[in-house]
Amino acid sequence: MCPKTLDVVGIGNAIVDVLVRADDDAIDNHQLTKGTMALIDEQQAEALYASLGPGLETSGGSAANTLAGIAQLGGRAGFIGRVRDDQLGAIFSHDIKAVGARYQTPPATSGPSTARCLILVTPDAQRTMCTYLGASVLLHPDDLDLEMVAQAKVLYLEGYLWDSDDAKAAFIAAAKVARANGGEVALSLSDAFCVERHRDSFQELVDGHVDILFANEMEITSLYKANSFEEAAEQVRGRCKVAALTRSEQGSVILNGSGTHPIDPFQLGQLVDTTGAGDLYAAGFLHAYCQGQAMESCGRLGSLCAGQVVTQLGPRPQADLRALQAQHLG
Amino acid sequence: MCPKTLDVVGIGNAIVDVLVRADDDAIDNHQLTKGTMALIDEQQAEALYASLGPGLETSGGSAANTLAGIAQLGGRAGFIGRVRDDQLGAIFSHDIKAVGARYQTPPATSGPSTARCLILVTPDAQRTMCTYLGASVLLHPDDLDLEMVAQAKVLYLEGYLWDSDDAKAAFIAAAKVARANGGEVALSLSDAFCVERHRDSFQELVDGHVDILFANEMEITSLYKANSFEEAAEQVRGRCKVAALTRSEQGSVILNGSGTHPIDPFQLGQLVDTTGAGDLYAAGFLHAYCQGQAMESCGRLGSLCAGQVVTQLGPRPQADLRALQAQHLG
Repeated sequence: MCPKTLDVVGIGNAIVDVLVRADDDAIDNHQLTKGTMALIDEQQAEALYASLGPGLETSGGSAANTLAGIAQLGGRAGFIGRVRDDQLGAIFSHDIKAVGARYQTPPATSGPSTARCLILVTPDAQRTMCTYLGASVLLHPDDLDLEMVAQAKVLYLEGYLWDSDDAKAAFIAAAKVARANGGEVALSLSDAFCVERHRDSFQELVDGHVDILFANEMEITSLYKANSFEEAAEQVRGRCKVAALTRSEQGSVILNGSGTHPIDPFQLGQLVDTTGAGDLYAAGFLHAYCQGQAMESCGRLGSLCAGQVVTQLGPRPQADLRALQAQHLG
Repeated sequence: MCPKTLDVVGIGNAIVDVLVRADDDAIDNHQLTKGTMALIDEQQAEALYASLGPGLETSGGSAANTLAGIAQLGGRAGFIGRVRDDQLGAIFSHDIKAVGARYQTPPATSGPSTARCLILVTPDAQRTMCTYLGASVLLHPDDLDLEMVAQAKVLYLEGYLWDSDDAKAAFIAAAKVARANGGEVALSLSDAFCVERHRDSFQELVDGHVDILFANEMEITSLYKANSFEEAAEQVRGRCKVAALTRSEQGSVILNGSGTHPIDPFQLGQLVDTTGAGDLYAAGFLHAYCQGQAMESCGRLGSLCAGQVVTQLGPRPQADLRALQAQHLG
């Protein structure tokens, strides 16, 4: 049992986002499904990029966004993920350390370049993502800083990494270390297509290794092939300690044991870009959770952080989350 | 005399901006002067970057911003500037071509990396810039696409390039080609410190080669060591065909011959970040100018574009400038 010097340690893809405004025709022309994430190779990434308008680059990655949010809230955060020693890798490394998260995964010195996610933001503020996983997907169990994992109250895993066998093995290894040291394991299902690709093994993962599950409506219904949100919610109940299920403008529902806690959403301004909404919900939730707060308080801080990030372009809050917390939840 | 297939061709530094929110203490701690541009070397850039918060990366460069704006307004724009064949260079190249500007300067295959500008945006929306010129400053007369210059109605030069002897020689060469082919030459003074560093040669440049001069209040008073804006304005009158002098929230004044045309500013929303305000003023002005519009109309389109860009983070308009033009000036 390791002393808990960190609140949350995340393992995920280390990605730089390229945010581009696009219209619905662009989504159709590239045969994308709005609101989801598609995996592309480097050639496809180049071709898609060339066809898009000017971009805005910012550090991303689902779990990385969550850990950056926790650090911004004042939590003790660590992140594990793999970049290349290139310019985008330097940007990713700088940004996550600049918010105060511990990040010491050494950059790869050979192999594919740092991962990039081309994010098409449509006028309805929805984001549609095409990800070139690059150096990120080659995360190997050897890359894990297990000392950091052992020191965390919560180990947070993003489902996206499930697309790589090495990363999958790294996940399970890390989850075992976390639990052996008295920590808990949280998982975000990440994306409905990701769930479809790995439904059976995600179900096993949830049953065998997960204490806190984050999923949106599409993801949880896909995981259990349910006909409705309510049906999916009853399926997941009891399989892990806590399930935090997000429903966009309908807020979220938290299930723990036989308890059901509906949480209202926060509307803090005009909806600009939903990129990072789920990631920041998890950030707020886990930050409050690590401080021992009640389920409702965890959900409300999650809602607040998600409510902020959708009012701006990009997945890392540009506003002062602690000031926002004091203002709305103080 | 070449047929004019382009409205404006710009020569300038090819830079990727790193926008970081900072407070006044950060400006003081790094001994910077708010609102100005300082040149730094790569080591200083690394050290400064490491000390700053998370950033947002976006293509920049003064003349490049202007040409991107002209292209967004529907003008025929070309840009000449030097990047390295690295990830930031690819971002710069993509973004300027993505808005429809012609850009064919080949990326350098060796030497310093693509230029970066660390921009500290303070809560008062002012920007303070620290630039590592990298590959950009090595622009050589041989890099000039003189065919493109010959085809332009207006050749636009940014004063920042005056910091390099090669680039200075490239400027003069390009200005001569432009005029020999019936084009006009426009110059932006760029920055008060830049003017101080090169006052005498800027005065010679204005007297000998410039038809249209862009300067803000600090720059024009520094150029003529004047005691007031009015004194500086009378100094510059008659030295070039048009002088467009910007005065932040006081709007701008256009001098041509004995004429004086004051132009009101546009206030389109909350002031977020002044990065790119001067660049976009020049974009609007030159776009209208190339369509043969009267001085007042040129100034008003300049004001409108500047008024838009200060309501967002970053120097390249994220709004639809043509729609804005139709709405406010249609």
